[in-house]
Amino acid sequence: MIRFLLYSLLFALLGACASQPELRGSNDLGVVIERADGAVLVVENSGNTVLHRVEGLGDLSHASLVYSRDGRYAYVFGRDGGLSKVDILRGELVTRVVQSGNSIGGAISQDGELIAVSNYEPGGVRVFDADDLVPIADIPAIPSAGGAASKVVGLVDAPEQRFVFSLFDSDEIWLADFENPQDPQITRYAEIGRAPYDALITADGRYYLAGLFGEDGLALLDLWRPEEGVRKVLEDYGRGDEKLPVYKMPHLEGFASASNYMFVPAVGRHEVLVIDERGWSEVARIPVAGQPVFVRARPDGREVWVNFAFPDNDRIQIIDVEELQVVDTLRPGKGVLHMEFTPRGDDIWVSVRDDNKLVVYDTRTREAVAELPARSPSGIFFTHRAGQLGF
Amino acid sequence: MIRFLLYSLLFALLGACASQPELRGSNDLGVVIERADGAVLVVENSGNTVLHRVEGLGDLSHASLVYSRDGRYAYVFGRDGGLSKVDILRGELVTRVVQSGNSIGGAISQDGELIAVSNYEPGGVRVFDADDLVPIADIPAIPSAGGAASKVVGLVDAPEQRFVFSLFDSDEIWLADFENPQDPQITRYAEIGRAPYDALITADGRYYLAGLFGEDGLALLDLWRPEEGVRKVLEDYGRGDEKLPVYKMPHLEGFASASNYMFVPAVGRHEVLVIDERGWSEVARIPVAGQPVFVRARPDGREVWVNFAFPDNDRIQIIDVEELQVVDTLRPGKGVLHMEFTPRGDDIWVSVRDDNKLVVYDTRTREAVAELPARSPSGIFFTHRAGQLGF
Repeated sequence: MIRFLLYSLLFALLGACASQPELRGSNDLGVVIERADGAVLVVENSGNTVLHRVEGLGDLSHASLVYSRDGRYAYVFGRDGGLSKVDILRGELVTRVVQSGNSIGGAISQDGELIAVSNYEPGGVRVFDADDLVPIADIPAIPSAGGAASKVVGLVDAPEQRFVFSLFDSDEIWLADFENPQDPQITRYAEIGRAPYDALITADGRYYLAGLFGEDGLALLDLWRPEEGVRKVLEDYGRGDEKLPVYKMPHLEGFASASNYMFVPAVGRHEVLVIDERGWSEVARIPVAGQPVFVRARPDGREVWVNFAFPDNDRIQIIDVEELQVVDTLRPGKGVLHMEFTPRGDDIWVSVRDDNKLVVYDTRTREAVAELPARSPSGIFFTHRAGQLGF
Repeated sequence: MIRFLLYSLLFALLGACASQPELRGSNDLGVVIERADGAVLVVENSGNTVLHRVEGLGDLSHASLVYSRDGRYAYVFGRDGGLSKVDILRGELVTRVVQSGNSIGGAISQDGELIAVSNYEPGGVRVFDADDLVPIADIPAIPSAGGAASKVVGLVDAPEQRFVFSLFDSDEIWLADFENPQDPQITRYAEIGRAPYDALITADGRYYLAGLFGEDGLALLDLWRPEEGVRKVLEDYGRGDEKLPVYKMPHLEGFASASNYMFVPAVGRHEVLVIDERGWSEVARIPVAGQPVFVRARPDGREVWVNFAFPDNDRIQIIDVEELQVVDTLRPGKGVLHMEFTPRGDDIWVSVRDDNKLVVYDTRTREAVAELPARSPSGIFFTHRAGQLGF
């Protein structure tokens, strides 16, 4: 009997022990959203393989994620207000909370201790402990002029333990200092422009740029000079006379910086605009195959790669940053939703939703070097984002 | 007997299994050189602790390292020609070769498959398989005009699977394309300036800049326009009339880019020079406490932090990039050799050789938040370098 128990114990310990995932670094890992299945894939970009599939993440029809500072965990933000902490080394869902009715994205604080989520319903930002997702702070987006809480959009992290976000319904930008998480200090900028619908922060964490749905131009906040307030730049940028629905307005995640330019999808035109980042002025327009959605910069800034909205969402175009023109067109398949370069830029991964696959291209030869099956893949996120600001 | 064997087997398996290091990501790890002991420390910058100490790495009095693309392995280049592959998750030396008599540094190819080492003796570059350190290629630095092999300095990796390096004795820069590792294609630039002693590549992988020991100025190669050859910039940069020994010339690793400026230690003067990176012209000089050695840019580009040569190597000064002046001075202890910001810039780690410690500062408050014991520490390298070019 004792022997039986001892054997059982030993085998149980062995089993538990052996179920440890194979030891590996996390710097070459990534996560891909399977938007129709509420699932994510954990991938690695050295051998180009899928390591794990993790299910149960709710509505990921519009999803994004950020990484813990050690690269081990992905925090996935789902449209249904779900916030899921995924262990990408084990391929397991660790913790999940449904923290609102309808959500649009999130961010992680500079020190990696806080997860912020921007919500439509109820309008505001909620902040959680990155370790166990325990709620830390709740910021209802009550407009400075009073009234119902606004939808919050364009949430980013900024240096010095801050978050920046926009209020769609009240035309405001808020800058929240979380040095003391229990008592965030909020600076409110009102009348920044009509209906900010999305935003970005530049890679150096200096400029917060919000797209405006209600008028032309972009709203700019210089985080090095916050006392100077918000100003308008690129005053001609926008729909002009044409009325487009807000979901067709370009995602600001689709703006890319390379070689002192910012490359920007035009609104309702088949063009990529080239902006000088020092003067915030337009210097060129590059004709492209369709309505651009994402412009992604190769890490060395030599090229930007562009994908397009339907019906041109079966191709990618490559723009040379010196020549400022299209130099190549690739056709990965139907439903090209997103692209992500490997950290040093040797490859690019492309999600091809309708063909249920990921395609990996060598950026030098522009040949496809791998294809991986994936169910309705959308966003692709590599772990080097763990060490970058504004993601 | 059988039972005895079975128990032994089970315990052995359990032991092997249990000796697996605790599962963790690698994105928050780092390596610190213990220059007097031929050892390195593996550290983590989330909790600020030492995880492992690895010995037997030979002469690390002048050492650098690069990371594998998954962040699991550090390749340490020692002065004695040693090339050591260290598993930082296990804290073990995996492979070590002594591949030359005297060596000065190395690089890893963009795809992570090749390790290149630059040697003084014999003069040249040797390339190894990153997996098992098997030799792949040997490039003796025979000058274009003939003669004995030159010492090689300033080896960096460049986009598109290339390496760039300089020949100290023959005034050349070579650009080696390793698309086919068995048959590297080398472009040789002669008469680039007298006695290049070190070099850097800008973060976008575009400009290779070599310091000149034999004359004033710097040699610049634009890797986007290699056919245009090498030209001289900053023609006044140098020793002027004063003769300094080469080991007192500023390391080009000590040049830092922030906000479209390059911050450069002056030669034999207590100044940091501010260079406009578009025009390669000097725009300002900032007086500082001593002869600058390393200038390091905070990841958001808001500040650069500077350390100094003896006798001022007990302090660090902080320069505000907007104001272009010193805004603070810190005194970590005696023998401040190196500084490295955490990837998102919330902290900075400082090696204090003579006090046998590492000091961690919060970059916002500038207060020391941790001290870790380390024996004669010098270089500090965090794993986000695995995802960056030119490291």
